[in-house]
Amino acid sequence: MISKNELKLLTSYKHSKYRNEDNIFVVEGIKMTQELLASNFEIIAIYAADDLWITENESYIRSKTIPLHEITTTELQKISSLTTPNKVYCVVKQNENGDVCYENQLTLVLESIKDPGNFGTIMRLADWFGVKTILCSQDCVDVFNPKSVQASMGSIFRVNVIYNNLEGCLQNLPQGFPIFGTLPQNGKNIYDASLSNEGIIIIGSESFGISKEIKAFVNQPLTIPRFSIQKDKPESLNASMATAIILSEFRKRL
Amino acid sequence: MISKNELKLLTSYKHSKYRNEDNIFVVEGIKMTQELLASNFEIIAIYAADDLWITENESYIRSKTIPLHEITTTELQKISSLTTPNKVYCVVKQNENGDVCYENQLTLVLESIKDPGNFGTIMRLADWFGVKTILCSQDCVDVFNPKSVQASMGSIFRVNVIYNNLEGCLQNLPQGFPIFGTLPQNGKNIYDASLSNEGIIIIGSESFGISKEIKAFVNQPLTIPRFSIQKDKPESLNASMATAIILSEFRKRL
Repeated sequence: MISKNELKLLTSYKHSKYRNEDNIFVVEGIKMTQELLASNFEIIAIYAADDLWITENESYIRSKTIPLHEITTTELQKISSLTTPNKVYCVVKQNENGDVCYENQLTLVLESIKDPGNFGTIMRLADWFGVKTILCSQDCVDVFNPKSVQASMGSIFRVNVIYNNLEGCLQNLPQGFPIFGTLPQNGKNIYDASLSNEGIIIIGSESFGISKEIKAFVNQPLTIPRFSIQKDKPESLNASMATAIILSEFRKRL
Repeated sequence: MISKNELKLLTSYKHSKYRNEDNIFVVEGIKMTQELLASNFEIIAIYAADDLWITENESYIRSKTIPLHEITTTELQKISSLTTPNKVYCVVKQNENGDVCYENQLTLVLESIKDPGNFGTIMRLADWFGVKTILCSQDCVDVFNPKSVQASMGSIFRVNVIYNNLEGCLQNLPQGFPIFGTLPQNGKNIYDASLSNEGIIIIGSESFGISKEIKAFVNQPLTIPRFSIQKDKPESLNASMATAIILSEFRKRL
């Protein structure tokens, strides 16, 4: 049982406004909580609606001096953003926007990615393919949106996500620093292109691809060839599919 | 304006039970309708809530003798499965489950894929990479689920989707027919493996991968190597990401 006021506060965290006011985000479910506990993120409190889970985890959680509250399934249902809440709900402190180091590594740059599911999937891909940092334009979806958090399947705890003005960041790169981006019209076939292990890979928005302003920075244009049966169909791959194929191509040549 | 009864019928189509009873599915939005009109699918009726769209498309739709109804935005809101309905709503006849021809082509086999978004994305990938047929286990999500239809972005009209008993189908293949599947433990690195342009590619469920029963048929086990910074994390890629990477590898060697 928790107080009416606490229930109200936690329910308000479904909205980014209240999450950002308190500088927190929400992590739900047993598996995600396990990944969270193994991370460096600061956990404000854990709310659990399952006796067995509490028994199994209580001493570890208390040893980390994290407040642990038992709640009812009905309370969990109220505060959860999931259709089927999964036993545990954690309030976690948002981490600070760190600096980006571009040298000797691949960095993903996302422009205007709006779908939280895509965003979460891209974090998971970055994690899988050893990309430490994702730099996002300021109009990308909120990384702490519950759907982004869930779709990342824990990768949100391991990948550094930074929001900044893309033009400003790209302008400051050393002359000739490799900037890759998929341009369907005049990119080089990614399967034949020479790829490097240092550089920026720009992923454009789901609806419009890379904008004209950002395109101007791309010095290594790529394209993912289509092998379809019907000419010119489908029109495109979605942003996370493209990211999967691109990162796979970059990494396999390591 | 449409009658109360018609409104009730269309609203009922949000549920698979009523779609299947009438052997139909629903396609929504201007772009999807455009792809639909270019396909061989039989359109039962089109409901549009936009004067301009009707003016621009009416003569073409009438020339195909498809009933076209003008409805109000409120009516569209009621019958739509989308959060933001997009002007047009079509009732379409479900196509028949055709036969699968496995020879001289790659066929995707999906086992227990439950997420309609993943399913739609996999159709889009199959379409992009020229895979004509997707064979699904009978417990895969409904291909005509509105979320699958939307996520396919029109590829549902170009890819042949068949539900059948997987074991039965795989048993009937000629001896030695290539059956690929990702087995994280003992597969061959997909980047080094010899891949063919004829064969079956099995994609396992989001939660459990390929089942023991189906694994027994895999004679070309593959694995997608992880390049992550933290050992053993993330645990996996999701089913549609894995499909993107696998199909890209198969096709680039054409």
